[in-house]
Amino acid sequence: MTKFEEEIRSQGAILRARALAGASEARRAAEGFRGITHLVVAARGSSDNAAIFLQYLAGQELGLLVALAAPSLYEGAHRMNLSGAGVLAISQSGRSPGMVEVLTQANQQGCTTVALTNYLTSSLAESSDVVLELRAGPEEAVASTKTFSATWHSLAQLVDAMSTNNLEGIEDLPEVVERVAAWALNIELPLDLLDVAGLTMVGRGVGYAVASEVALKVREVSGVRAESYAAPDYLHGPVGADGAGCTLVAVITDELEDAVLFELLQGCRGSQMATVVIRSPRRAAVDCDAEIVLPEVGPNWVEALCAVILGQVIALRLGEIRGRDIDTSPGLSKVTLSA
Amino acid sequence: MTKFEEEIRSQGAILRARALAGASEARRAAEGFRGITHLVVAARGSSDNAAIFLQYLAGQELGLLVALAAPSLYEGAHRMNLSGAGVLAISQSGRSPGMVEVLTQANQQGCTTVALTNYLTSSLAESSDVVLELRAGPEEAVASTKTFSATWHSLAQLVDAMSTNNLEGIEDLPEVVERVAAWALNIELPLDLLDVAGLTMVGRGVGYAVASEVALKVREVSGVRAESYAAPDYLHGPVGADGAGCTLVAVITDELEDAVLFELLQGCRGSQMATVVIRSPRRAAVDCDAEIVLPEVGPNWVEALCAVILGQVIALRLGEIRGRDIDTSPGLSKVTLSA
Repeated sequence: MTKFEEEIRSQGAILRARALAGASEARRAAEGFRGITHLVVAARGSSDNAAIFLQYLAGQELGLLVALAAPSLYEGAHRMNLSGAGVLAISQSGRSPGMVEVLTQANQQGCTTVALTNYLTSSLAESSDVVLELRAGPEEAVASTKTFSATWHSLAQLVDAMSTNNLEGIEDLPEVVERVAAWALNIELPLDLLDVAGLTMVGRGVGYAVASEVALKVREVSGVRAESYAAPDYLHGPVGADGAGCTLVAVITDELEDAVLFELLQGCRGSQMATVVIRSPRRAAVDCDAEIVLPEVGPNWVEALCAVILGQVIALRLGEIRGRDIDTSPGLSKVTLSA
Repeated sequence: MTKFEEEIRSQGAILRARALAGASEARRAAEGFRGITHLVVAARGSSDNAAIFLQYLAGQELGLLVALAAPSLYEGAHRMNLSGAGVLAISQSGRSPGMVEVLTQANQQGCTTVALTNYLTSSLAESSDVVLELRAGPEEAVASTKTFSATWHSLAQLVDAMSTNNLEGIEDLPEVVERVAAWALNIELPLDLLDVAGLTMVGRGVGYAVASEVALKVREVSGVRAESYAAPDYLHGPVGADGAGCTLVAVITDELEDAVLFELLQGCRGSQMATVVIRSPRRAAVDCDAEIVLPEVGPNWVEALCAVILGQVIALRLGEIRGRDIDTSPGLSKVTLSA
């Protein structure tokens, strides 16, 4: 078995093991963030996709505005006004370039700073008031899986801790993730529709975070040129491209209404694309080339993580049939040294 | 001549005609935004690419944090905390879905609201404290050109008005744009490298806004599947995809250092991609398959708009050799009705 597959399988156990300590750290971070008007998040790659998830979950549950930081603005002599903001940096290694500069400016301005990382001794952790420890263990495959779900878990714990309500679904997440990983590794996927010249992943709200992460995973592991769009943005221009030999994968979450989905599928058929839909059993059946229906019903943000795990398995299967070296993701190293 | 080409040629004259009144409106908007801690911008499609430009220019010149609004968070009963923020909505038609909802919440919370639109009688304009009028005239080609440069101009005027310094290059912009459009329509482009199965446009800072807008234009007008990435994000995973038959186009602006550019070109060669670079005459020659050197030197943000105009012409030429109906952008309508 590849390390990548082992790591996909391990995610439920990892979430279970980090639940208690993670919740306690999240409460400390929430305490630090009390009274902020907005939250600035610095992240790259997979972590940036998790930041998109936070943007929607924090907006939906807390009404909290999340701004994704543009790291180049924090370099050199530039000084950004962070007054009123809390600042969160996300990096598995704690060494992702440009993140420490954001935290340093935030510390100088007296903002509460939080780092979400696997490494307590990293420069990221050492530059922060509070550390949310990923506790995902060392990642051996180059393409991240357990790191991503642990990040998702930790961000949900943070929102839960900042909310006056309990975040529905947080307690059961480890078990759900474990069941969904086993299910996804056991089903037959419509690989003929997915092993194509170009995959376009679309979603809305937390579904856009899913589309972005799955597209990245598919690219890294299988080499298929996958791209991702927020569904309304895709309709606002990019849908016009020639799509012959390409496939649309729509990730349906609560934010994606049937009317937009219908327009989307119609537009893609018009440009010769095949269409695949990933949806909850809660949603009505969709007229498309293939549907993948998640195995169980849950809150929107939990179903979204289930779709990510399904996407990890899609990346794995595509990598297998394309004969790729799945654990090394040719051409990639874990930490980009310059940025 | 296609409407699209006519509109490309018209941009200098349009900026010249809007310079004075636009500057005066920008001063009113800047007055309204006095004292904000951050700016929330709502936009879709091309306007969203202009918002990315503002994110960098406002950060670089003013240290002002710009957050791109996620429209789905402002729908229905959701209520976002906008305290301390100014709010700007950008939509050529003034009818882009989801924008008015953002302005309505902002008005209810006492934030200053500004609309940037071509239509003073649009619902967007009527929901705002101050209107920045695009004055681009009715757009006849479906893919926007003059609207985009007028938006860029207006946003630069806004930053100029909010700054204690004068924004270098703002006075000369109409003349520069006119000269660059004439130049771009007159040069020979490396179309064999650009008429490919997949184009990947990358840039950093304002260059990322350029890459995003050019990729969108190429998709709409020529049908070539073009995608865009911030350069460090591209290196952080997506570069691993199979690139045979595809081309990287790197837009070099000041934010993209030589070291990252070198890593980028190396990674793309490793994945079998051809490489094209767009750069200022200020930057050193780059070892790649083709360079396109802008015809004149200017401030970074001005050169970036020159690269956009070059990209409009690339989209036009690709559309011509691919036999597309350039003015109608098949499959697209100007305003997406649902979102």
